Amino acid sequence: MIKAAIMGCGTIGSGVYEAVERNQEVIQRELGEELRIAKILDLRNFPGEPFEKLVVHDFQELVSDPEIRIVVETMGGTKPAYEFVKACLLAGKQVVTSNKALVAAHGTELLQIAREKQINFFFEAAVGGGIPVIRNLGSGYAGQVITEITGILNGTTNYILTRMEREGADFAAVLSEAQELGYAERNPEADIEGYDSCRKIAILASIMTDREVNFEEVHTEGITKIDSLDFRYAAKLGASIKLVGSALREADGIAVTVFPLLIAQDNPLYSVSGVYNGILVKGNLLDTTMLYGSGAGMLPTASAVLADMLEAAKHPAENLLYGWHGKALSPKPVAESSHRYLVRFAGNAAELGAEAAERFGRAELIVLEGTEEFALLTPRMREREYRTIAAGFSNIISMIRAELD
Amino acid sequence: MIKAAIMGCGTIGSGVYEAVERNQEVIQRELGEELRIAKILDLRNFPGEPFEKLVVHDFQELVSDPEIRIVVETMGGTKPAYEFVKACLLAGKQVVTSNKALVAAHGTELLQIAREKQINFFFEAAVGGGIPVIRNLGSGYAGQVITEITGILNGTTNYILTRMEREGADFAAVLSEAQELGYAERNPEADIEGYDSCRKIAILASIMTDREVNFEEVHTEGITKIDSLDFRYAAKLGASIKLVGSALREADGIAVTVFPLLIAQDNPLYSVSGVYNGILVKGNLLDTTMLYGSGAGMLPTASAVLADMLEAAKHPAENLLYGWHGKALSPKPVAESSHRYLVRFAGNAAELGAEAAERFGRAELIVLEGTEEFALLTPRMREREYRTIAAGFSNIISMIRAELD
Repeated sequence: MIKAAIMGCGTIGSGVYEAVERNQEVIQRELGEELRIAKILDLRNFPGEPFEKLVVHDFQELVSDPEIRIVVETMGGTKPAYEFVKACLLAGKQVVTSNKALVAAHGTELLQIAREKQINFFFEAAVGGGIPVIRNLGSGYAGQVITEITGILNGTTNYILTRMEREGADFAAVLSEAQELGYAERNPEADIEGYDSCRKIAILASIMTDREVNFEEVHTEGITKIDSLDFRYAAKLGASIKLVGSALREADGIAVTVFPLLIAQDNPLYSVSGVYNGILVKGNLLDTTMLYGSGAGMLPTASAVLADMLEAAKHPAENLLYGWHGKALSPKPVAESSHRYLVRFAGNAAELGAEAAERFGRAELIVLEGTEEFALLTPRMREREYRTIAAGFSNIISMIRAELD
Repeated sequence: MIKAAIMGCGTIGSGVYEAVERNQEVIQRELGEELRIAKILDLRNFPGEPFEKLVVHDFQELVSDPEIRIVVETMGGTKPAYEFVKACLLAGKQVVTSNKALVAAHGTELLQIAREKQINFFFEAAVGGGIPVIRNLGSGYAGQVITEITGILNGTTNYILTRMEREGADFAAVLSEAQELGYAERNPEADIEGYDSCRKIAILASIMTDREVNFEEVHTEGITKIDSLDFRYAAKLGASIKLVGSALREADGIAVTVFPLLIAQDNPLYSVSGVYNGILVKGNLLDTTMLYGSGAGMLPTASAVLADMLEAAKHPAENLLYGWHGKALSPKPVAESSHRYLVRFAGNAAELGAEAAERFGRAELIVLEGTEEFALLTPRMREREYRTIAAGFSNIISMIRAELD
């Protein structure tokens, strides 16, 4: 029997316990032996729960137990997760985590310790919930130069944007409903400001480049400024607006960004709606592929943790090629990236549209009936150039980048 | 250096050679050593090609070369692929194939030989081209009870159906254009009759159940009877028609089928268009996920072969848990499966519709203006029951199964 422990028995942690119990038969068939949760570290007691007797309150009881070979970290945050995970790895225990904050902040060091110990630090569940994107990057797409990863990485914001699009509703109204339904947290900043997507794309960019991409260097914009008129403009263009995290290998460096993006119907991400995540991967052989699924949720996330636990169990003393090795790599400034831009202007299209369009290099003019504004869809240009031209206007309301032909 | 050989230097085989050469740097980083193609078996010579000097015509030269550890089979068909692959495995060489006909017909035996030899027989490229569905089933979704695999598994038929839908065109016209463009073969039966999808879903069903599902027992219908009116009915239902292969774990057995299916817009497969493939996987923890990508094409398929080659190279003497073990498992008869059915009737809807709808249990009546026919969308019922009711009519034109709410 392989013994594992769980640190942090919240939604994900208890889901992992349930997954291991429920799927014991499959697990035994795949491993050739039992895999059981032997200890659960939490501050609370869980009277009446089936795992009540497994609960311990002292980390030392867990880390000093030589029988525990795999530790699952589902506490979230970095304190004390970082300290605990590091201690577990140093004690020779393999670690599986669902904690993107931990991986984004300390992944490089923790991966390095795992390598030195010839064990593994796995974090499939930290990105894309039940979608095995990290395993695919490491194994399914092996031998490939990955040229692009672009994903809808946050279910909460995708749910909000989808409802705004379908109902013509405004951001604030949908957010507060989403909070009531439990799809958004009371403190929604991490989601709606793009911080969650930022950590996830930093992790994926690090894997793609084999270098540490610091999430603090990722240009990040959230969805709080998107309003119902943006979706009316998008509809006129046959496009949707999605919050995407993107890592692009370009001639002059790696572009790593999070922002709302107009995407066309023929983009596979266009159809990723509601709380689902979609992650588009391009390789130099592969063409375009997309992984789609539940980006959050107790059991989908637990399923990713479980897959990592099995991988760890199968390789008790072998460090697999996951994560990244190299020293830090800074993304190129967003000003050096090229996009098209949907730019909204206050004022009358008939009066101001033609001249504005001309200044942006014959941009496409889009007029919304019944409003006192208009928009331009510019040609593709460097953001630096866009900013220079935009600085010449005093009536710009907003800008959304566009990936449209 | 790890030496590999390729048997069959057609489109895929030459793509594998190109992939190995082009991505040598990534390969060496991932393997820690070189992986090179040392021999290529083909009946032809390839004067002027970069691999000209690697070509051999005698299989014995390849199988008796102790330096060759991995053999890629991209000949297609079962003769002589079966005999050659078996001989390679018996000689202790790992085999990677893109040949679904071979895997569907002889997979059980070849997997068994690989297990006895503690090597691997991999076939990622046989299903879904560049989509790593088999690796995901074996690793990304480890520890999971897979309850359903439903896929658009054939790019040619999906291309034809997509064009029929978008252009209102008829099957024969689109097929002949697809043939001219090279998207369909001159002898298109394997695609349009569903035989290709049938072999692929049989392979996936075998992996899902860990038992051999014989492709000859898979109920298979192609797309040759779909016409432009079917798409007009579908549009009225907000649905699309896709050729899907499906393996479903049900209370009374495994249903494994290939047929055209009406699917709703909220089904992730709805948006899989053109030559792309999409494979939807459901697990008891996972919820719904989908893998999307190029189902064919030289380099995407070669990328799947290459990933298998790297996996084989990393595990030179360890049989990984891929494929299936158990003895044969027969799918349940299609008559025992339940669907909704879109049934087209000759005649006047006003005269005949109401009574027909009543006999199918208050089916939904759909009228196409300007035609001498109408259709019913029945409630969900066993196909056995559908057939009994349908037998009472002499004016049924066609039936398409529907996965609609």
